[in-house]
Amino acid sequence: MSSKNPHFVTLLGSLRKASFNGGVARALPALAPEGVTISPLGSIVDFPLYNADIQAEGFPAAVEAMGAAVKAADGVIVVSPEYNYSVPGALKNAIDWLSRLPSAPFKHKPILLQSASPGALGGARMQYHLRQTFVFLDASVFNTPEAMIGGAGGKFDNATGDLTDEGTKDFLRKQLAAFADFARRMN
Amino acid sequence: MSSKNPHFVTLLGSLRKASFNGGVARALPALAPEGVTISPLGSIVDFPLYNADIQAEGFPAAVEAMGAAVKAADGVIVVSPEYNYSVPGALKNAIDWLSRLPSAPFKHKPILLQSASPGALGGARMQYHLRQTFVFLDASVFNTPEAMIGGAGGKFDNATGDLTDEGTKDFLRKQLAAFADFARRMN
Amino acid sequence: MSSKNPHFVTLLGSLRKASFNGGVARALPALAPEGVTISPLGSIVDFPLYNADIQAEGFPAAVEAMGAAVKAADGVIVVSPEYNYSVPGALKNAIDWLSRLPSAPFKHKPILLQSASPGALGGARMQYHLRQTFVFLDASVFNTPEAMIGGAGGKFDNATGDLTDEGTKDFLRKQLAAFADFARRMN
Amino acid sequence: MSSKNPHFVTLLGSLRKASFNGGVARALPALAPEGVTISPLGSIVDFPLYNADIQAEGFPAAVEAMGAAVKAADGVIVVSPEYNYSVPGALKNAIDWLSRLPSAPFKHKPILLQSASPGALGGARMQYHLRQTFVFLDASVFNTPEAMIGGAGGKFDNATGDLTDEGTKDFLRKQLAAFADFARRMN
Repeated sequence: MSSKNPHFVTLLGSLRKASFNGGVARALPALAPEGVTISPLGSIVDFPLYNADIQAEGFPAAVEAMGAAVKAADGVIVVSPEYNYSVPGALKNAIDWLSRLPSAPFKHKPILLQSASPGALGGARMQYHLRQTFVFLDASVFNTPEAMIGGAGGKFDNATGDLTDEGTKDFLRKQLAAFADFARRMN
Repeated sequence: MSSKNPHFVTLLGSLRKASFNGGVARALPALAPEGVTISPLGSIVDFPLYNADIQAEGFPAAVEAMGAAVKAADGVIVVSPEYNYSVPGALKNAIDWLSRLPSAPFKHKPILLQSASPGALGGARMQYHLRQTFVFLDASVFNTPEAMIGGAGGKFDNATGDLTDEGTKDFLRKQLAAFADFARRMN
Repeated sequence: MSSKNPHFVTLLGSLRKASFNGGVARALPALAPEGVTISPLGSIVDFPLYNADIQAEGFPAAVEAMGAAVKAADGVIVVSPEYNYSVPGALKNAIDWLSRLPSAPFKHKPILLQSASPGALGGARMQYHLRQTFVFLDASVFNTPEAMIGGAGGKFDNATGDLTDEGTKDFLRKQLAAFADFARRMN
Repeated sequence: MSSKNPHFVTLLGSLRKASFNGGVARALPALAPEGVTISPLGSIVDFPLYNADIQAEGFPAAVEAMGAAVKAADGVIVVSPEYNYSVPGALKNAIDWLSRLPSAPFKHKPILLQSASPGALGGARMQYHLRQTFVFLDASVFNTPEAMIGGAGGKFDNATGDLTDEGTKDFLRKQLAAFADFARRMN
């Protein structure tokens, strides 16, 4: 590929309306470096719980559609909360489905991880578990700087989930620029 | 508690009918030491994808019921495959729901982890991720010996998922006896 | 055991003189609940790099001495920085030696983990790696609350490493009380 | 770089003479694809236990030398046993030293992980911990296929540590070819 103007897609790990992580995902397009576009993937809420017996009858349409969008993108930005020191089940379920597609949409795909949480660690534990999953999927996960947005209660509009903290926006702007360089190098 | 005759419940992480891990779970009651009883929890398939907005309207009945069964048990045996080097999304989703119950059903609860997989590692990577989740839930996870049943293709009836390997049955018999001692010590 | 007045020992993972973690370890005796005593183990600096060929000729005296002190204690408090997102090599080397002692000093031993670091995560990544090691050693690692002291630059005397932050002291006081209860329950 | 004929160096995590992992490292040069050369780094036994106070007086000569060799190489093959479900302390200690060099020798460096162990998991747990360390060091760690050589007792000459199993040699031949492609892509 080595596209000069990469297009990234966001995979959101939270389902609640006023999610902080939803706020991060919504903020990204305006924070992207010039020439980089970012658009959201469909919601993971439309995926049934993974079951190989269902797969044997054919992939759900939502899985096929998301797989195609991931495959076509120059990179995937996973934005997700941490639940119980790990990946939200709903997000992992989506990845479990996508991993079974014959197109192997994550293979060699540049991946950026971002998380926000009320606690001090900002979702770090979730990110390291996701990294292990992406080893198996042979994706190319961006290393540093890492976006682990702790103390989220003071950085977002708690009613809407919109990201309001300027320092965090600046950081994300820099991280997106570094990820765009990485994606160009990988593609 | 310190019940002389502990009762354990199994939490199954796979949804497919001929699951190897389902075969492990079905085999356990007959492998338990004298005086120990083991019964299955309900299926995780009845849990919606976790969403705090749904929780705000009340816990689903399946979540409440499983939480009560976990709370009443002397220990929980989690039997699960590994998906993409981690916990199946469907299983993690069930734990995400259970973790929100005000009764905190996993707190100080003795937990035993078991996994079977076709590969050599037998689900090891899944188990270490689950262990991290149970730190947050303040559960008491049994250490060793660990049940990571690799090369499952040759140890189960592939049509039904029934466990057929006698060596594996012997190992599980010993592990259950050690877990029963552990649970008595913890409760 | 179930000693009414437990005695804990501290295992320090840093070798530098003005170490923040050294400051934590020095602060602990004064923060212990009534009836609980805490004393430092010897330094890990006296351990050679682990080599099974050296072990075959006999354990170094420093290893034997530390193993005996761990075995005799009612619990071990590991206080350590995080190096490169994991356990300092020097600390892991000490554990590698201790793990080979026929007395199995860590078996069923209550363990408390504490870490301080300049970054926001406070050594969290180090602690989860150590937890995995203690699964193999069949130790009983305390779950929560976790002591991950981030932003250490503002909470310690940078010249001496002495802990100066009162909020951190209060937290450690509460954590030590909870660990003492845990150790009594485990022993 | 994009050198047509890449040169890799091996970093050995074991110190015992008849080490299985030493046997793997010795076997690699003969298993490399045409045009690829592989040579061993110096021994990690010459590194003192890491201490920032020592570093303040200057890096030990062995650290400087290994750092320069890593920096000059087109990739690093880490070959190591697993100790206590994690990285050997001696190996982590070497990485702790190398990580402090101003030259940042691991930055963007292609890394291949290999491990052998008597158990069924073949050192898997060690490898995932090392991967986390290399996130911080911003290295480019090769994903799959993974070399986790379990049941090592039957695949090596137990007196010398020489690798004798032909199936393992074939696997390593293929993995080295895939890693050479990866390193060319990364450099």
